[in-house]
This record gives sequence, C-alpha cells and structure tokens, in this order.
Amino acid sequence: MLEEGRSEEELFSFLSLKKGEDSSYHHVLSSMCTIPHPVAARAHQMFLEANLGDPGLFRGTAEIEALLIERIGDLLHHRRAGGYATSGGTESNLQALRIFRKMKASSRPNIVVPESAHFSFEKACDILSLGMRTVPCDDSFRMDADALQEAIDADTCAVVAIAGTTEYGVVDPIAAIADIAHDTGVPLHVDAAFGGFVIPFLKQEIPFDFSLEGVSSIAIDPHKMGMSTIPCGSLLVREPSWFDLLNVETPYLTVKQECTLAGTRSGGAVVGAFAVLEYLGKSGLAAIVRGCMKNTKRLITGMETLGYRRAVTPDLNVATFHADHVPPGWRVSWTRRGHMRTVMMPHVHLSVIEEFLRDIGDNNAQKTD
Amino acid sequence: MLEEGRSEEELFSFLSLKKGEDSSYHHVLSSMCTIPHPVAARAHQMFLEANLGDPGLFRGTAEIEALLIERIGDLLHHRRAGGYATSGGTESNLQALRIFRKMKASSRPNIVVPESAHFSFEKACDILSLGMRTVPCDDSFRMDADALQEAIDADTCAVVAIAGTTEYGVVDPIAAIADIAHDTGVPLHVDAAFGGFVIPFLKQEIPFDFSLEGVSSIAIDPHKMGMSTIPCGSLLVREPSWFDLLNVETPYLTVKQECTLAGTRSGGAVVGAFAVLEYLGKSGLAAIVRGCMKNTKRLITGMETLGYRRAVTPDLNVATFHADHVPPGWRVSWTRRGHMRTVMMPHVHLSVIEEFLRDIGDNNAQKTD
Repeated sequence: MLEEGRSEEELFSFLSLKKGEDSSYHHVLSSMCTIPHPVAARAHQMFLEANLGDPGLFRGTAEIEALLIERIGDLLHHRRAGGYATSGGTESNLQALRIFRKMKASSRPNIVVPESAHFSFEKACDILSLGMRTVPCDDSFRMDADALQEAIDADTCAVVAIAGTTEYGVVDPIAAIADIAHDTGVPLHVDAAFGGFVIPFLKQEIPFDFSLEGVSSIAIDPHKMGMSTIPCGSLLVREPSWFDLLNVETPYLTVKQECTLAGTRSGGAVVGAFAVLEYLGKSGLAAIVRGCMKNTKRLITGMETLGYRRAVTPDLNVATFHADHVPPGWRVSWTRRGHMRTVMMPHVHLSVIEEFLRDIGDNNAQKTD
Repeated sequence: MLEEGRSEEELFSFLSLKKGEDSSYHHVLSSMCTIPHPVAARAHQMFLEANLGDPGLFRGTAEIEALLIERIGDLLHHRRAGGYATSGGTESNLQALRIFRKMKASSRPNIVVPESAHFSFEKACDILSLGMRTVPCDDSFRMDADALQEAIDADTCAVVAIAGTTEYGVVDPIAAIADIAHDTGVPLHVDAAFGGFVIPFLKQEIPFDFSLEGVSSIAIDPHKMGMSTIPCGSLLVREPSWFDLLNVETPYLTVKQECTLAGTRSGGAVVGAFAVLEYLGKSGLAAIVRGCMKNTKRLITGMETLGYRRAVTPDLNVATFHADHVPPGWRVSWTRRGHMRTVMMPHVHLSVIEEFLRDIGDNNAQKTD
C-alpha cells in the first residue's frame, strides 16, 4: 500500500485506463445483467450513502424498500408478501432454503431441484448442509414434472422450480410442480431471478407466481431484467412471519433484530430498483420485454437461415443454438451441453442482432469457401 | 405496481421527499459507516455498470479488485494473501468459517468466539450449523485468553478474535490468542471489520494481523473506516488455495468457477474502495485515524467532566459511557450492558463533539436544577 497517496488526477487517469479494459455492453450477448437504466443510476447516486443495515437512520430509504417489495409483490399477485432486497439471486435462494430448512424436522434435510438449476443452489446446499436431489429435464430442458414425486422423500424440506432457466430461458411447468408440492406438503421455491420481470409481460400466459397456491417463495432480481444498479435482488415469501425464523438480535442498531443475510446494505441500489419500476410502470416494462422478445425471435430466425438450428424454442429472451464458433469481437456463452447461448437484454438492440448475424454469416461463408 | 409509469420529475420529487426522511450523518454518533469519501463516490459512479460476477467481461474492474486485495494484504503484513471483496463483514465472517468448517473432520463442528462477538457470528453459526462456544470477556470487555484453551474441544474448527469490538472498540489480546490457536492446531479468524483500517495507524502497537503466525484469516471492511461506498467488505486468508474449497463451477460465465458468496457483484463499490486507499495512502489514512482518536479522547474527557464515567478506555474510536439519556436530536446507541455507545467516524468533527457535550451538559444542568 502506498505510503503517500496519489493525486486525484493521476488516480482517475489510471482508473480510466482500467475502465477501458472493461468490455462495453455493445457486443455482449452473454450477460443477464445490463446497462443500468438512467433513472436507476440517478437514484443510486442520490441515495449513495444510505445504509439499509440501519433502517432507523435511513427511514426514507427503508420505506422505499418496503414500497419496492410491495410493487414486486403486486406484480407477482401477492401484494402482502413478505420480502426484502437481497444482494442478488444467490442470497435470495440461500435465504429461502434457510427458512424451509428450519421448518423441517430432519437431521438430513434435502432439496429437490431440476437438473437445470443455477449453480447458486450448489452453493446453498454446501453452505446449509442440504442434500440435493435432482429431477431430470425433458427434451425441452424443463423439469420433468412426472419425475418429481418420486424425487421427494421424507427429508425433503423444499422443492425448487426455475422460472426462466439461466442456460435455455425456458420456464419449468410450475403449475404442475406447485400442485405436487402442495399436495405433498412441501414448500416450493421459485427461482425467477431472471424471468420474474419478463414472464408477466409475455404474450402467452405462463403461471409461475403466488397465484399458484403451492408457491411459497420467489427470488426475483431487479439487477437483471429490472435494469437496476448492482446489487439488488429480492426474495418474497407468502407469509411475512416466516422471516422471523431468520432473526438475530441486533442490540446496537436502530432496529432490534434483522433477518437479512448482510448487515450493512446498499440503499442506493434498492432506490434505483424502485425508481425503474416506478418510472416505467407495467406498460413500460411490457414494452421493453416486447422488444427483447422480438429481437430474440429475429436472432433465431436469422441464425436458422444461416443453418444454425435452435437448441430449443425459449419462453424468454435467451436463444441457444447448435453452433460451435463465435465471430471475433463478440461475447456469447456456452451451455453445459455445448450450445451457444445468447441473452437479448435491453442493451442488445436490433441493429446489434443484425450485425451479429452478418458477422457470423461472413464467418460461415468463409468457412465453406 | 403502477400500470403507467410516473414522470421523471414527479418520481424524483417523491424520492427527494424520502431522502429528507433519512437522517443526515451530522448528529449521528451511532454508526460504523460514514459518508463515502468523494473519490469513492466518483469512482463508483464511473464503474456503476461493472459486474464482478463476470470478471472476464470486466477485466479492468477485476484487476482493480486484485489490487485492492493486494493493498489490504500489504497493510496487514501479507501481500500475497488470498482474498476478495465481499458484501461486508457478515459475508466475510461466514465465508471464513465455511472454509474452516470444510477443513475439519467433524460431524458436530463448533467455533469458539468471545462474548463480545458481533451478531453476524450468530447468523453464521445458524447458517453453517456450527455450535458456538463462548469465552467470557474480562473487565475490559476483551476476550479472557486464559479461558480460551478450555473452550476449544475436539470439534472446534475455528477460533474467532475481534480486532475492535463493535460495542466497546477494544481489541482482543490477539497475540496470545494466536499463540494458543496455533499451538492447538486450530485456525484463527480475526474480525477486523471495523478495526482493520484503524489499528495499523494508532500510536500504540497492537498486534492483530498476519504478522502473527497463528492468524489464518482476517475480515476487514472498506465500507466502514475505509470510507468506501456500500457494499464493500473483504476477506483475506493466509493461503490463497483455501478458497478452492468454496469453488462451484460456473459453466456459462467468463470464468469457470467462483468461490464468492454472491454471483453478480458490484464493481463500483470495489473500485471506490481502491480509490480511497490509493488517494489517501498510509499517511492519509493515518491522519484520519489520528483525527478520530483525538475526537474520541476529547469526548471522553468532556463526558467525564460532566460526570459521565467511561465504561472502558477504548483502543479505537468508539467511546462508551455510564449514561442513560441522550439529548434530543442526537443518535447514539446502547450496548447490551446498557452503556451509551458512540463512534467517532470521520464525519464526527470536533465541532460536533463540542456541540454534543454542550447539549448533554445543558440536559444535565436542567436535570439537576
């Protein structure tokens, strides 16, 4: 560590250099995060010093967090859901499973997840000492609900379903899964970290939220399709009192107990998340989702014209292909099965899609010449 | 959730109203967070969209995180420590214990903590299914190192010592604790979340870091005395390879595995933290600590002149008193033993101390009239 500091000028010169080494989002098709919406950035700046770990000191910010949860609860058909703003999907999933582990009288509790589950469930099981029982997916990469019942056993404390898988952008058959979970008396946690701000605005109706009786909790990330700054995820649960199971006493703070994972928490990102939802409203979000889905369809059509078959028809703005190379200068990712994976976030404009198709088309032409 | 959004003007009018309901830091003596340093705010803004959960996309930001850890490692006498930027002290403590739990072959692992331990250890033990064995504190609210050995048993996976307790601002006898831990073959985790950026700059030398052979890991929070934006904590460990124990595979990201708790992570706060340390250097941090310690001493002297005895002589910039009322308009907190607790963060200028002494003095005078 430097003995004497650097001048602000020299420091920010260095930081600019480093910023130049960050990818711009321009050619990034691999990310479920996106450029924060301008109102999120502005709101975050305004509330930069707010610490939600001490809500009595930051009452205005704490109220906005409550409003955010209410807005999200309303979107998910349960305005009175309990909830709070997490650091992201991983914490949301972890805390949900922590609640259900506590409710279960078992010395060897396990959870049942689809094959497609995000790696955060692996982390959560490791941390919480939970067994993980996996349900295979069908040919469309969705959980095979027919195989669910047999995966649940006497030690199962929760079932997990994915509303918008990370790899393929498909939604598990959550209505069927919720029925089974409900009939079996096992809580169902829905990981809608990505899909939560997309599914409500699709043309086709896909049930996934609290309108299904068997759904106990939902993870939904404003810092993905909610276009907020980082970090802002959220966890909503059917019964607010379930969070009491996570409480520890906090004697020297302005509140006497807290259920969150972190102590100190960013108020800025939470206000940013609220600002985006408030600014756009349902109609604004719907318009963005329409645009992303249109671009997704355009990419799929364009790729198939070039001979790259889709791996599956997605429900959401994620497109996957039988392809094995990416044109230089573009960022895509690869699923565990080896498919090319692209995510049509709001920063991926139609012009970017056309450019990608031209580039991969040129590449293709070069290969066959 | 609104069907149509609100105009930006109306939205930010509402947000300003809410901001007005947040306390300014002006009269806040209860907080271990403070107003972010201007260079942190500027740097955070610059790197607002950076997501450290995908470091291959944000190489510049990822490099800055590595530099931050190196700077902190250097401060703590182990430049080659492994480390990463966490969401804060709670995650740092949790992840450290998670590593040591993995290293321990026991079906009923426990940790040994002082009575004074922060409530985050309660969360961590709950989450990680760890037993908690408590060592009493002595009259100075420091761990009684003589009672440590008997608290360690065959299932103990880690000992925890506090370098700057949250309630009393004292530092445990870490050299003695480290010796015992080392001789017993048990890892020692030092919670220096608050004290890590203070102790190195005090007049008196208090050993607490990697210079002690028995210290295995250290939690240290830039968003406390490091004056960064939220969220930025950090965890450093003696052997970088220990983080491999936490790895999960991350097939569709730009890196193939990650050891962190969160997936998506704020780059802005991490760059902000680096910016402060780089701008101030050791000499700048030392000057700030000197100022905070001077203000702490002034408050103690002033309070004792008014008849409020100190609860203990602190090592750090936390002052506690036998007092039972706070003048209106001031925020202090209360320890579990009922002492008034104040923290002299950089935003607590000498003039603020004098104002507090006048107000509590007036209160006092009124009571005795």
